[in-house]
Amino acid sequence: MSFRGHIRSCNNYDPARVVPLVAGTDRIGLLRRDNAAALRRFPEIFAVAGDEVRLLVGGDAGAVSRAVESVVDALVAENRIPKWRNETFDVAPRWGAPPVFRLDRGAVPFFGTRAYGVHLNGYCRDGNTLFLWVGRRSPDKRVAPNKLDNLVAGGIGNGHGVAETLLKEGEEEASMPTKLTKHAVPVGAVSYRMETRLGIRDDVLFVYDLEMPADFVPQNRDGEIVQFELMPAAAVLELVRTTEDFKFNVNLVIIDFALRHGLLHPDDREYLEVATGLHRPLD
Amino acid sequence: MSFRGHIRSCNNYDPARVVPLVAGTDRIGLLRRDNAAALRRFPEIFAVAGDEVRLLVGGDAGAVSRAVESVVDALVAENRIPKWRNETFDVAPRWGAPPVFRLDRGAVPFFGTRAYGVHLNGYCRDGNTLFLWVGRRSPDKRVAPNKLDNLVAGGIGNGHGVAETLLKEGEEEASMPTKLTKHAVPVGAVSYRMETRLGIRDDVLFVYDLEMPADFVPQNRDGEIVQFELMPAAAVLELVRTTEDFKFNVNLVIIDFALRHGLLHPDDREYLEVATGLHRPLD
Repeated sequence: MSFRGHIRSCNNYDPARVVPLVAGTDRIGLLRRDNAAALRRFPEIFAVAGDEVRLLVGGDAGAVSRAVESVVDALVAENRIPKWRNETFDVAPRWGAPPVFRLDRGAVPFFGTRAYGVHLNGYCRDGNTLFLWVGRRSPDKRVAPNKLDNLVAGGIGNGHGVAETLLKEGEEEASMPTKLTKHAVPVGAVSYRMETRLGIRDDVLFVYDLEMPADFVPQNRDGEIVQFELMPAAAVLELVRTTEDFKFNVNLVIIDFALRHGLLHPDDREYLEVATGLHRPLD
Repeated sequence: MSFRGHIRSCNNYDPARVVPLVAGTDRIGLLRRDNAAALRRFPEIFAVAGDEVRLLVGGDAGAVSRAVESVVDALVAENRIPKWRNETFDVAPRWGAPPVFRLDRGAVPFFGTRAYGVHLNGYCRDGNTLFLWVGRRSPDKRVAPNKLDNLVAGGIGNGHGVAETLLKEGEEEASMPTKLTKHAVPVGAVSYRMETRLGIRDDVLFVYDLEMPADFVPQNRDGEIVQFELMPAAAVLELVRTTEDFKFNVNLVIIDFALRHGLLHPDDREYLEVATGLHRPLD
Protein backbone atom coordinates (compact mmCIF):
# COMPACT_ATOMS: atom_id res chain seq x y z
CA MET A 1 0.00 0.00 0.00
CA SER A 2 1.36 3.42 -0.90
CA PHE A 3 1.60 6.29 1.59
CA ARG A 4 -1.53 7.83 0.15
CA GLY A 5 -3.25 4.44 0.39
CA HIS A 6 -2.76 4.45 4.17
CA ILE A 7 -4.01 8.03 4.40
CA ARG A 8 -7.08 7.23 2.33
CA SER A 9 -7.91 4.07 4.26
CA CYS A 10 -7.79 6.01 7.56
CA ASN A 11 -10.10 8.62 5.98
CA ASN A 12 -12.65 6.31 4.35
CA TYR A 13 -15.43 8.11 6.27
CA ASP A 14 -18.51 8.81 4.13
CA PRO A 15 -20.83 11.47 5.61
CA ALA A 16 -23.80 9.99 3.71
CA ARG A 17 -23.63 6.87 5.91
CA VAL A 18 -23.76 8.79 9.18
CA VAL A 19 -26.01 11.07 11.25
CA PRO A 20 -24.73 13.41 13.96
CA LEU A 21 -25.17 12.68 17.66
CA VAL A 22 -26.27 15.97 19.19
CA ALA A 23 -26.41 17.25 22.77
CA GLY A 24 -27.99 20.70 23.15
CA THR A 25 -26.51 22.77 20.33
CA ASP A 26 -23.32 20.68 19.96
CA ARG A 27 -22.44 17.70 17.81
CA ILE A 28 -20.68 15.19 20.07
CA GLY A 29 -20.58 12.05 17.92
CA LEU A 30 -21.17 10.45 14.50
CA LEU A 31 -23.57 7.49 14.35
CA ARG A 32 -23.57 5.17 11.40
CA ARG A 33 -27.20 4.78 10.33
CA ASP A 34 -27.45 1.13 11.48
CA ASN A 35 -26.10 2.13 14.88
CA ALA A 36 -28.49 5.08 15.04
CA ALA A 37 -31.42 2.74 14.28
CA ALA A 38 -30.36 0.45 17.14
CA LEU A 39 -30.91 3.37 19.54
CA ARG A 40 -34.63 3.63 18.67
CA ARG A 41 -35.54 1.22 21.44
CA PHE A 42 -34.19 3.65 24.10
CA PRO A 43 -36.60 6.54 23.48
CA GLU A 44 -36.15 7.98 26.95
CA ILE A 45 -32.44 8.45 26.37
CA PHE A 46 -32.09 9.08 22.61
CA ALA A 47 -34.44 10.71 20.08
CA VAL A 48 -33.64 9.09 16.73
CA ALA A 49 -34.68 11.15 13.69
CA GLY A 50 -33.70 10.74 10.05
CA ASP A 51 -31.08 13.45 10.15
CA GLU A 52 -29.79 13.33 13.72
CA VAL A 53 -29.84 11.50 17.02
CA ARG A 54 -30.43 13.69 20.03
CA LEU A 55 -29.27 12.89 23.57
CA LEU A 56 -32.34 13.55 25.74
CA VAL A 57 -30.84 13.09 29.19
CA GLY A 58 -29.63 16.22 30.97
CA GLY A 59 -27.81 16.75 34.24
CA ASP A 60 -24.18 16.43 35.24
CA ALA A 61 -21.70 14.13 33.51
CA GLY A 62 -22.24 11.44 36.17
CA ALA A 63 -25.99 11.29 35.62
CA VAL A 64 -25.70 11.28 31.81
CA SER A 65 -22.96 8.63 31.95
CA ARG A 66 -25.19 6.32 34.01
CA ALA A 67 -28.05 6.69 31.54
CA VAL A 68 -25.79 5.99 28.53
CA GLU A 69 -24.17 3.06 30.39
CA SER A 70 -27.57 1.37 30.67
CA VAL A 71 -27.86 1.61 26.87
CA VAL A 72 -24.32 0.33 26.35
CA ASP A 73 -25.10 -2.62 28.67
CA ALA A 74 -28.04 -3.59 26.48
CA LEU A 75 -26.03 -3.15 23.25
CA VAL A 76 -23.19 -5.31 24.61
CA ALA A 77 -25.77 -8.01 25.37
CA GLU A 78 -26.91 -7.75 21.73
CA ASN A 79 -23.30 -8.01 20.51
CA ARG A 80 -23.59 -4.60 18.83
CA ILE A 81 -20.81 -3.30 21.03
CA PRO A 82 -17.84 -5.46 22.04
CA LYS A 83 -17.16 -6.26 25.66
CA TRP A 84 -16.55 -3.49 28.15
CA ARG A 85 -12.94 -2.33 28.32
CA ASN A 86 -13.36 -0.71 31.72
CA GLU A 87 -11.53 2.41 30.61
CA THR A 88 -13.61 5.50 29.99
CA PHE A 89 -13.07 8.39 27.56
CA ASP A 90 -14.51 11.88 27.96
CA VAL A 91 -17.18 12.82 25.41
CA ALA A 92 -17.16 16.56 24.68
CA PRO A 93 -17.95 18.81 21.72
CA ARG A 94 -14.24 19.75 21.48
CA TRP A 95 -10.87 19.23 23.14
CA GLY A 96 -10.73 20.99 26.49
CA ALA A 97 -14.51 21.53 26.77
CA PRO A 98 -16.23 20.06 29.84
CA PRO A 99 -17.38 16.47 29.20
CA VAL A 100 -21.07 15.83 28.52
CA PHE A 101 -20.56 12.24 29.70
CA ARG A 102 -17.94 9.50 29.97
CA LEU A 103 -18.08 6.47 27.71
CA ASP A 104 -16.45 3.06 27.93
CA ARG A 105 -13.69 2.84 25.33
CA GLY A 106 -15.29 -0.22 23.75
CA ALA A 107 -18.38 1.84 22.88
CA VAL A 108 -16.56 4.84 21.37
CA PRO A 109 -16.72 3.74 17.70
CA PHE A 110 -20.42 2.84 18.02
CA PHE A 111 -21.24 6.44 18.99
CA GLY A 112 -18.43 7.94 16.88
CA THR A 113 -17.34 10.25 19.67
CA ARG A 114 -13.92 11.82 19.22
CA ALA A 115 -11.08 9.93 20.85
CA TYR A 116 -7.64 11.26 21.68
CA GLY A 117 -4.39 9.35 21.89
CA VAL A 118 -0.70 10.02 22.28
CA HIS A 119 2.05 8.43 20.15
CA LEU A 120 5.79 8.63 20.70
CA ASN A 121 8.39 8.29 17.95
CA GLY A 122 11.49 7.08 19.81
CA TYR A 123 14.48 7.62 17.54
CA CYS A 124 18.29 7.47 17.57
CA ARG A 125 20.85 9.08 15.29
CA ASP A 126 24.06 7.51 14.06
CA GLY A 127 25.82 10.19 12.03
CA ASN A 128 23.24 11.25 9.46
CA THR A 129 21.21 8.04 9.73
CA LEU A 130 17.99 7.95 11.74
CA PHE A 131 16.73 4.84 13.52
CA LEU A 132 13.25 4.26 14.97
CA TRP A 133 12.20 2.02 17.84
CA VAL A 134 9.36 -0.22 16.68
CA GLY A 135 7.20 -2.43 18.92
CA ARG A 136 5.19 -5.49 17.98
CA ARG A 137 1.69 -5.63 19.52
CA SER A 138 0.70 -8.68 21.48
CA PRO A 139 -1.43 -11.35 19.72
CA ASP A 140 -3.93 -10.78 22.59
CA LYS A 141 -4.66 -7.12 21.68
CA ARG A 142 -8.28 -6.57 20.69
CA VAL A 143 -7.36 -3.96 18.07
CA ALA A 144 -4.62 -4.80 15.53
CA PRO A 145 -3.05 -7.89 17.17
CA ASN A 146 0.52 -8.72 16.03
CA LYS A 147 0.83 -5.43 14.14
CA LEU A 148 3.86 -3.16 14.48
CA ASP A 149 3.51 -0.01 16.58
CA ASN A 150 5.32 3.11 17.79
CA LEU A 151 7.63 2.87 20.81
CA VAL A 152 4.78 4.15 23.01
CA ALA A 153 1.11 4.78 22.20
CA GLY A 154 -2.07 4.96 24.22
CA GLY A 155 -5.52 6.45 24.48
CA ILE A 156 -6.15 9.44 26.71
CA GLY A 157 -8.61 8.31 29.39
CA ASN A 158 -11.02 10.69 31.05
CA GLY A 159 -9.45 13.12 33.46
CA HIS A 160 -5.90 12.50 32.19
CA GLY A 161 -3.70 15.01 30.39
CA VAL A 162 -1.62 14.44 27.26
CA ALA A 163 1.82 14.60 28.88
CA GLU A 164 0.58 12.62 31.88
CA THR A 165 -0.69 9.83 29.60
CA LEU A 166 2.63 9.78 27.73
CA LEU A 167 4.62 9.41 30.97
CA LYS A 168 2.33 6.63 32.27
CA GLU A 169 2.28 4.69 28.99
CA GLY A 170 6.05 5.13 28.58
CA GLU A 171 6.55 3.43 31.92
CA GLU A 172 4.02 0.62 31.35
CA GLU A 173 4.79 -0.13 27.72
CA ALA A 174 8.53 0.48 27.49
CA SER A 175 9.89 0.82 31.07
CA MET A 176 10.90 4.38 30.29
CA PRO A 177 11.65 6.44 33.41
CA THR A 178 9.90 9.80 33.76
CA LYS A 179 13.24 11.60 33.67
CA LEU A 180 13.73 10.28 30.13
CA THR A 181 10.16 10.60 28.77
CA LYS A 182 9.75 14.16 30.01
CA HIS A 183 12.24 15.29 27.34
CA ALA A 184 9.85 14.15 24.57
CA VAL A 185 9.03 17.04 22.23
CA PRO A 186 5.39 17.67 21.20
CA VAL A 187 5.47 18.02 17.41
CA GLY A 188 1.83 18.30 16.36
CA ALA A 189 -1.18 16.05 15.90
CA VAL A 190 -2.36 13.53 13.31
CA SER A 191 -6.12 13.33 12.73
CA TYR A 192 -8.34 11.10 10.61
CA ARG A 193 -11.94 9.86 10.38
CA MET A 194 -12.48 6.20 9.57
CA GLU A 195 -15.37 3.80 9.29
CA THR A 196 -14.68 0.40 10.84
CA ARG A 197 -16.88 -2.66 11.42
CA LEU A 198 -18.01 -1.11 14.72
CA GLY A 199 -18.78 2.42 13.58
CA ILE A 200 -16.78 5.63 13.20
CA ARG A 201 -13.32 6.38 14.57
CA ASP A 202 -12.94 10.17 14.83
CA ASP A 203 -9.39 10.19 16.15
CA VAL A 204 -6.80 12.75 17.12
CA LEU A 205 -3.28 11.56 17.95
CA PHE A 206 -0.95 13.94 19.77
CA VAL A 207 2.53 13.18 18.42
CA TYR A 208 5.82 13.41 20.33
CA ASP A 209 9.41 12.79 19.18
CA LEU A 210 12.14 11.71 21.59
CA GLU A 211 15.81 11.16 20.76
CA MET A 212 16.64 8.07 22.80
CA PRO A 213 19.95 7.41 24.56
CA ALA A 214 21.98 4.87 22.56
CA ASP A 215 22.24 2.56 25.58
CA PHE A 216 18.53 2.43 26.49
CA VAL A 217 16.63 -0.72 25.51
CA PRO A 218 12.85 -0.58 26.05
CA GLN A 219 11.20 -3.44 27.93
CA ASN A 220 7.49 -4.01 28.03
CA ARG A 221 5.75 -4.42 31.40
CA ASP A 222 2.03 -4.59 30.68
CA GLY A 223 1.98 -7.46 28.18
CA GLU A 224 0.76 -5.25 25.33
CA ILE A 225 4.01 -5.33 23.33
CA VAL A 226 5.90 -8.58 22.78
CA GLN A 227 9.08 -7.24 21.21
CA PHE A 228 10.96 -4.01 20.46
CA GLU A 229 13.40 -3.49 17.63
CA LEU A 230 15.57 -0.54 16.59
CA MET A 231 15.32 -0.25 12.80
CA PRO A 232 16.76 2.22 10.28
CA ALA A 233 14.07 4.82 9.68
CA ALA A 234 14.40 4.30 5.91
CA ALA A 235 13.63 0.59 6.35
CA VAL A 236 10.64 1.42 8.57
CA LEU A 237 9.37 3.79 5.91
CA GLU A 238 9.75 1.16 3.20
CA LEU A 239 7.73 -1.28 5.35
CA VAL A 240 5.04 1.38 5.69
CA ARG A 241 5.04 2.06 1.97
CA THR A 242 4.87 -1.55 0.83
CA THR A 243 3.04 -3.51 3.57
CA GLU A 244 0.23 -3.43 6.11
CA ASP A 245 2.53 -4.64 8.89
CA PHE A 246 1.92 -1.55 11.01
CA LYS A 247 -1.30 -0.82 12.88
CA PHE A 248 -3.46 1.33 10.57
CA ASN A 249 -2.99 4.67 12.33
CA VAL A 250 0.70 4.12 13.15
CA ASN A 251 1.39 4.32 9.41
CA LEU A 252 0.21 7.94 9.52
CA VAL A 253 2.36 8.78 12.56
CA ILE A 254 5.45 7.35 10.84
CA ILE A 255 4.72 9.11 7.55
CA ASP A 256 4.40 12.37 9.55
CA PHE A 257 7.77 11.63 11.22
CA ALA A 258 9.36 10.98 7.84
CA LEU A 259 7.92 14.19 6.42
CA ARG A 260 9.16 16.33 9.31
CA HIS A 261 12.64 14.78 9.24
CA GLY A 262 13.28 15.22 5.52
CA LEU A 263 12.93 11.53 4.56
CA LEU A 264 10.37 12.41 1.87
CA HIS A 265 11.16 14.68 -1.04
CA PRO A 266 9.06 17.38 -2.69
CA ASP A 267 9.75 15.76 -6.07
CA ASP A 268 7.83 12.66 -4.97
CA ARG A 269 4.47 12.53 -6.75
CA GLU A 270 2.73 11.74 -3.44
CA TYR A 271 4.42 14.55 -1.48
CA LEU A 272 1.61 17.10 -1.38
CA GLU A 273 -1.14 14.55 -0.82
CA VAL A 274 0.90 13.29 2.14
CA ALA A 275 1.80 16.77 3.45
CA THR A 276 -1.86 17.87 3.37
CA GLY A 277 -3.45 14.51 4.26
CA LEU A 278 -2.29 13.81 7.81
CA HIS A 279 -4.20 16.53 9.65
CA ARG A 280 -7.89 16.30 8.86
CA PRO A 281 -9.45 19.59 10.03
CA LEU A 282 -11.65 19.09 13.10
CA ASP A 283 -15.33 20.02 12.97
CA MET B 1 -4.10 38.46 16.32
CA SER B 2 -4.01 34.92 17.76
CA PHE B 3 -2.43 31.95 15.96
CA ARG B 4 -5.88 30.79 14.91
CA GLY B 5 -6.68 34.30 13.71
CA HIS B 6 -3.80 34.12 11.21
CA ILE B 7 -4.92 30.66 10.07
CA ARG B 8 -8.49 31.82 9.62
CA SER B 9 -7.53 34.95 7.75
CA CYS B 10 -5.45 32.90 5.28
CA ASN B 11 -8.45 30.59 4.83
CA ASN B 12 -11.21 33.19 4.44
CA TYR B 13 -12.17 31.60 1.10
CA ASP B 14 -15.95 31.28 0.64
CA PRO B 15 -16.94 28.80 -2.10
CA ALA B 16 -20.26 30.62 -2.59
CA ARG B 17 -18.38 33.63 -4.01
CA VAL B 18 -16.50 31.61 -6.62
CA VAL B 19 -16.99 29.48 -9.73
CA PRO B 20 -14.49 26.92 -11.01
CA LEU B 21 -12.30 27.56 -14.03
CA VAL B 22 -12.41 24.32 -16.01
CA ALA B 23 -10.25 22.93 -18.84
CA GLY B 24 -11.50 19.64 -20.29
CA THR B 25 -12.48 17.54 -17.26
CA ASP B 26 -10.15 19.33 -14.82
CA ARG B 27 -10.63 22.30 -12.51
CA ILE B 28 -7.60 24.55 -12.94
CA GLY B 29 -8.66 27.74 -11.16
CA LEU B 30 -11.20 29.51 -8.93
CA LEU B 31 -12.80 32.68 -10.31
CA ARG B 32 -14.52 35.11 -8.02
CA ARG B 33 -17.91 35.87 -9.61
CA ASP B 34 -16.98 39.47 -10.50
CA ASN B 35 -13.81 38.24 -12.19
CA ALA B 36 -15.76 35.52 -14.01
CA ALA B 37 -18.22 38.15 -15.29
CA ALA B 38 -15.32 40.22 -16.65
CA LEU B 39 -14.42 37.28 -18.92
CA ARG B 40 -17.78 37.43 -20.76
CA ARG B 41 -16.38 39.79 -23.31
CA PHE B 42 -13.86 37.18 -24.48
CA PRO B 43 -16.34 34.53 -25.75
CA GLU B 44 -13.83 32.92 -28.09
CA ILE B 45 -11.51 32.12 -25.20
CA PHE B 46 -13.79 31.61 -22.18
CA ALA B 47 -17.38 30.30 -21.91
CA VAL B 48 -18.85 31.96 -18.81
CA ALA B 49 -21.84 30.12 -17.31
CA GLY B 50 -23.50 30.57 -13.91
CA ASP B 51 -21.74 27.62 -12.36
CA GLU B 52 -18.40 27.50 -14.17
CA VAL B 53 -16.07 29.20 -16.60
CA ARG B 54 -14.71 26.96 -19.31
CA LEU B 55 -11.44 27.51 -21.17
CA LEU B 56 -12.32 27.07 -24.85
CA VAL B 57 -8.87 27.26 -26.41
CA GLY B 58 -7.11 23.97 -27.06
CA GLY B 59 -3.63 23.12 -28.30
CA ASP B 60 -0.25 23.07 -26.64
CA ALA B 61 0.67 25.19 -23.62
CA GLY B 62 2.29 27.81 -25.88
CA ALA B 63 -0.86 28.35 -27.94
CA VAL B 64 -3.16 28.47 -24.90
CA SER B 65 -0.77 30.83 -23.10
CA ARG B 66 -0.84 33.28 -26.02
CA ALA B 67 -4.66 33.27 -26.08
CA VAL B 68 -4.89 33.87 -22.34
CA GLU B 69 -2.19 36.55 -22.55
CA SER B 70 -4.37 38.54 -24.93
CA VAL B 71 -7.13 38.49 -22.30
CA VAL B 72 -4.71 39.44 -19.52
CA ASP B 73 -3.48 42.36 -21.66
CA ALA B 74 -7.02 43.69 -21.94
CA LEU B 75 -7.71 43.17 -18.21
CA VAL B 76 -4.50 45.00 -17.26
CA ALA B 77 -5.66 47.90 -19.45
CA GLU B 78 -8.96 47.89 -17.48
CA ASN B 79 -7.06 47.84 -14.18
CA ARG B 80 -8.69 44.56 -13.23
CA ILE B 81 -5.30 42.92 -13.08
CA PRO B 82 -2.22 44.75 -11.78
CA LYS B 83 0.78 45.37 -13.98
CA TRP B 84 2.61 42.46 -15.55
CA ARG B 85 5.28 40.95 -13.33
CA ASN B 86 7.08 39.25 -16.22
CA GLU B 87 7.40 36.01 -14.29
CA THR B 88 5.14 33.13 -15.32
CA PHE B 89 3.67 30.32 -13.25
CA ASP B 90 2.54 26.96 -14.63
CA VAL B 91 -1.23 26.37 -14.53
CA ALA B 92 -2.05 22.68 -14.10
CA PRO B 93 -4.81 20.61 -12.50
CA ARG B 94 -2.33 19.33 -9.88
CA TRP B 95 1.34 19.45 -8.87
CA GLY B 96 3.50 17.58 -11.35
CA ALA B 97 0.84 17.41 -14.07
CA PRO B 98 1.73 18.92 -17.47
CA PRO B 99 0.79 22.62 -17.62
CA VAL B 100 -2.33 23.63 -19.53
CA PHE B 101 -0.83 27.11 -19.94
CA ARG B 102 1.56 29.59 -18.32
CA LEU B 103 0.24 32.69 -16.61
CA ASP B 104 1.90 35.93 -15.57
CA ARG B 105 2.26 35.97 -11.79
CA GLY B 106 0.32 39.22 -11.56
CA ALA B 107 -2.76 37.51 -13.05
CA VAL B 108 -2.69 34.41 -10.82
CA PRO B 109 -5.14 35.64 -8.13
CA PHE B 110 -7.58 36.88 -10.80
CA PHE B 111 -7.89 33.34 -12.19
CA GLY B 112 -7.35 31.65 -8.81
CA THR B 113 -4.92 29.16 -10.25
CA ARG B 114 -2.82 27.28 -7.71
CA ALA B 115 0.55 28.84 -6.97
CA TYR B 116 3.54 27.16 -5.37
CA GLY B 117 6.25 28.75 -3.30
CA VAL B 118 9.20 27.71 -1.18
CA HIS B 119 9.97 29.11 2.29
CA LEU B 120 13.11 28.54 4.35
CA ASN B 121 13.25 28.73 8.14
CA GLY B 122 16.89 29.56 8.85
CA TYR B 123 17.56 28.83 12.51
CA CYS B 124 20.41 28.63 15.01
CA ARG B 125 20.65 26.85 18.35
CA ASP B 126 22.36 28.14 21.46
CA GLY B 127 22.08 25.39 24.03
CA ASN B 128 18.35 24.66 24.22
CA THR B 129 17.33 28.04 22.80
CA LEU B 130 16.29 28.36 19.16
CA PHE B 131 16.83 31.52 17.11
CA LEU B 132 15.25 32.38 13.75
CA TRP B 133 16.59 34.60 10.98
CA VAL B 134 13.93 37.15 10.04
CA GLY B 135 14.00 39.45 7.02
CA ARG B 136 12.19 42.75 6.49
CA ARG B 137 10.64 43.14 3.03
CA SER B 138 11.47 46.20 1.02
CA PRO B 139 9.00 49.13 1.01
CA ASP B 140 8.98 48.70 -2.79
CA LYS B 141 7.50 45.17 -2.75
CA ARG B 142 4.09 44.99 -4.42
CA VAL B 143 2.79 42.40 -1.95
CA ALA B 144 3.21 43.07 1.80
CA PRO B 145 5.78 45.93 1.71
CA ASN B 146 7.74 46.46 4.97
CA LYS B 147 6.42 43.24 6.47
CA LEU B 148 8.66 40.67 8.15
CA ASP B 149 9.50 37.48 6.24
CA ASN B 150 11.35 34.16 6.42
CA LEU B 151 15.10 34.09 5.68
CA VAL B 152 14.32 33.00 2.11
CA ALA B 153 10.99 32.76 0.27
CA GLY B 154 9.94 32.79 -3.34
CA GLY B 155 7.40 31.63 -5.87
CA ILE B 156 8.14 28.64 -8.08
CA GLY B 157 8.21 29.91 -11.65
CA ASN B 158 7.27 27.71 -14.59
CA GLY B 159 9.79 25.04 -15.44
CA HIS B 160 11.66 25.38 -12.13
CA GLY B 161 11.85 22.73 -9.41
CA VAL B 162 11.38 23.21 -5.68
CA ALA B 163 14.99 22.66 -4.61
CA GLU B 164 16.26 24.65 -7.60
CA THR B 165 14.07 27.63 -6.63
CA LEU B 166 15.29 27.43 -3.04
CA LEU B 167 18.95 27.49 -4.13
CA LYS B 168 18.37 30.41 -6.52
CA GLU B 169 16.35 32.48 -4.03
CA GLY B 170 18.87 31.70 -1.24
CA GLU B 171 21.60 33.23 -3.35
CA GLU B 172 19.60 36.27 -4.50
CA GLU B 173 17.84 37.07 -1.24
CA ALA B 174 20.42 36.13 1.37
CA SER B 175 23.77 35.51 -0.42
CA MET B 176 23.67 31.91 0.71
CA PRO B 177 26.10 29.68 -1.20
CA THR B 178 24.70 26.49 -2.73
CA LYS B 179 26.94 24.39 -0.52
CA LEU B 180 25.09 25.79 2.51
CA THR B 181 21.52 25.86 1.14
CA LYS B 182 21.68 22.31 -0.18
CA HIS B 183 21.65 21.06 3.43
CA ALA B 184 18.15 22.52 3.95
CA VAL B 185 15.72 19.80 5.05
CA PRO B 186 12.27 19.56 3.39
CA VAL B 187 9.78 19.34 6.27
CA GLY B 188 6.35 19.45 4.62
CA ALA B 189 4.03 21.99 3.07
CA VAL B 190 1.68 24.71 4.30
CA SER B 191 -1.48 25.29 2.25
CA TYR B 192 -4.33 27.79 2.44
CA ARG B 193 -7.02 29.37 0.28
CA MET B 194 -7.62 33.08 0.67
CA GLU B 195 -9.72 35.77 -0.97
CA THR B 196 -7.86 39.02 -1.54
CA ARG B 197 -8.80 42.24 -3.30
CA LEU B 198 -7.62 40.71 -6.59
CA GLY B 199 -9.27 37.31 -6.36
CA ILE B 200 -8.35 33.93 -4.88
CA ARG B 201 -4.94 32.82 -3.63
CA ASP B 202 -4.84 29.00 -3.72
CA ASP B 203 -1.34 28.60 -2.35
CA VAL B 204 0.98 25.76 -1.45
CA LEU B 205 4.26 26.57 0.29
CA PHE B 206 6.98 23.93 0.39
CA VAL B 207 8.73 24.40 3.73
CA TYR B 208 12.42 23.79 4.48
CA ASP B 209 14.38 24.10 7.74
CA LEU B 210 18.11 24.83 7.79
CA GLU B 211 20.33 25.05 10.85
CA MET B 212 22.60 27.98 10.00
CA PRO B 213 26.29 28.25 10.88
CA ALA B 214 26.72 30.66 13.81
CA ASP B 215 29.13 32.83 11.82
CA PHE B 216 26.98 33.27 8.70
CA VAL B 217 25.23 36.63 8.29
CA PRO B 218 22.78 36.83 5.37
CA GLN B 219 23.07 39.77 2.97
CA ASN B 220 20.42 40.69 0.45
CA ARG B 221 21.42 41.14 -3.20
CA ASP B 222 18.19 41.66 -5.13
CA GLY B 223 16.78 44.62 -3.18
CA GLU B 224 13.75 42.66 -1.95
CA ILE B 225 14.86 42.49 1.69
CA VAL B 226 16.19 45.57 3.49
CA GLN B 227 17.39 43.99 6.73
CA PHE B 228 17.99 40.62 8.41
CA GLU B 229 17.87 39.98 12.12
CA LEU B 230 18.51 36.87 14.23
CA MET B 231 15.77 36.73 16.89
CA PRO B 232 14.96 34.24 19.64
CA ALA B 233 12.30 31.93 18.21
CA ALA B 234 10.11 32.55 21.27
CA ALA B 235 10.18 36.31 20.56
CA VAL B 236 9.34 35.69 16.89
CA LEU B 237 6.42 33.53 17.95
CA GLU B 238 5.17 36.20 20.34
CA LEU B 239 5.31 38.76 17.49
CA VAL B 240 3.30 36.37 15.33
CA ARG B 241 0.75 35.82 18.10
CA THR B 242 0.23 39.48 18.96
CA THR B 243 0.86 41.49 15.78
CA GLU B 244 0.45 41.59 12.03
CA ASP B 245 4.12 42.48 11.51
CA PHE B 246 4.78 39.39 9.40
CA LYS B 247 3.54 38.89 5.84
CA PHE B 248 0.21 37.04 6.08
CA ASN B 249 1.41 33.62 4.94
CA VAL B 250 4.75 33.78 6.79
CA ASN B 251 2.76 33.66 10.04
CA LEU B 252 1.61 30.15 9.04
CA VAL B 253 5.13 29.01 8.17
CA ILE B 254 6.43 30.19 11.55
CA ILE B 255 3.54 28.63 13.46
CA ASP B 256 4.32 25.35 11.65
CA PHE B 257 8.00 25.70 12.65
CA ALA B 258 7.01 26.32 16.26
CA LEU B 259 4.69 23.31 16.25
CA ARG B 260 7.31 20.95 14.82
CA HIS B 261 10.00 22.17 17.24
CA GLY B 262 7.96 21.81 20.42
CA LEU B 263 7.43 25.54 21.05
CA LEU B 264 3.65 25.03 21.33
CA HIS B 265 2.10 22.80 23.95
CA PRO B 266 -0.82 20.37 23.69
CA ASP B 267 -2.39 22.03 26.75
CA ASP B 268 -2.78 25.26 24.76
CA ARG B 269 -6.44 25.76 23.88
CA GLU B 270 -5.48 26.61 20.29
CA TYR B 271 -3.19 23.58 19.83
CA LEU B 272 -5.46 21.31 17.80
CA GLU B 273 -6.87 24.08 15.65
CA VAL B 274 -3.28 25.03 14.82
CA ALA B 275 -2.08 21.44 14.31
CA THR B 276 -4.95 20.70 11.91
CA GLY B 277 -5.22 24.16 10.32
CA LEU B 278 -1.94 24.61 8.45
CA HIS B 279 -2.41 22.02 5.72
CA ARG B 280 -5.63 22.64 3.87
CA PRO B 281 -6.34 19.47 1.84
CA LEU B 282 -5.89 20.07 -1.90
CA ASP B 283 -8.79 19.48 -4.27
